[in-house]
Amino acid sequence: MATTRTRTTRPSPALPHLDEIIHQRVRLGIVSALAAGGPMAFNDLKAVLGLTDGNLSVHARKLEEAGYVACRKFFEQKTPRTEYELTAAGRRALEQYLDQMEAVIHAAREG
Amino acid sequence: MATTRTRTTRPSPALPHLDEIIHQRVRLGIVSALAAGGPMAFNDLKAVLGLTDGNLSVHARKLEEAGYVACRKFFEQKTPRTEYELTAAGRRALEQYLDQMEAVIHAAREG
Repeated sequence: MATTRTRTTRPSPALPHLDEIIHQRVRLGIVSALAAGGPMAFNDLKAVLGLTDGNLSVHARKLEEAGYVACRKFFEQKTPRTEYELTAAGRRALEQYLDQMEAVIHAAREG
Repeated sequence: MATTRTRTTRPSPALPHLDEIIHQRVRLGIVSALAAGGPMAFNDLKAVLGLTDGNLSVHARKLEEAGYVACRKFFEQKTPRTEYELTAAGRRALEQYLDQMEAVIHAAREG
């Protein structure tokens, strides 16, 4: 008679569920900065994170497309300004990501 | 006379320093599994993480090339087996990554 044996000695870490939109290092930097510091101007965000115009634009666009970041364009003393802000969905996604990453850290340190 | 003003009101999160070798989701899964469970056979690792042969091979190779994972090939009752183990350098890199990620989590939650 066949019996089924299940291995139960080793914990099953499985592949972590991590939001790939937020997991990417530059985008994680952007959402973290916006979460901690509120709305930020394009140039401030660029300076703080040490990014090029192109790099920030590309990743901010990806975050906008995901609905995690809102972009506001306006004139300040005739100078065009661009400002980014975390949306409610972005904040929820970040919180969920941080929870998942904490679980990963906890699991990895269990050994 | 010109004065220099430095903005000090906003915290400076900067771009997180995260080891890109470990940060990638599949590789993070591999090193976490090896850190928590010790050496693992190719097939066990594949099953636990829900990966294809190709996907596991590619990412394990990358971890080997970085010196984070050691690969051992041997025969067990005439069947070829492949086993992966975290190296000392891999464990250090993972610890450092986890520390950096904890700092990211902390900074993002400060807001």
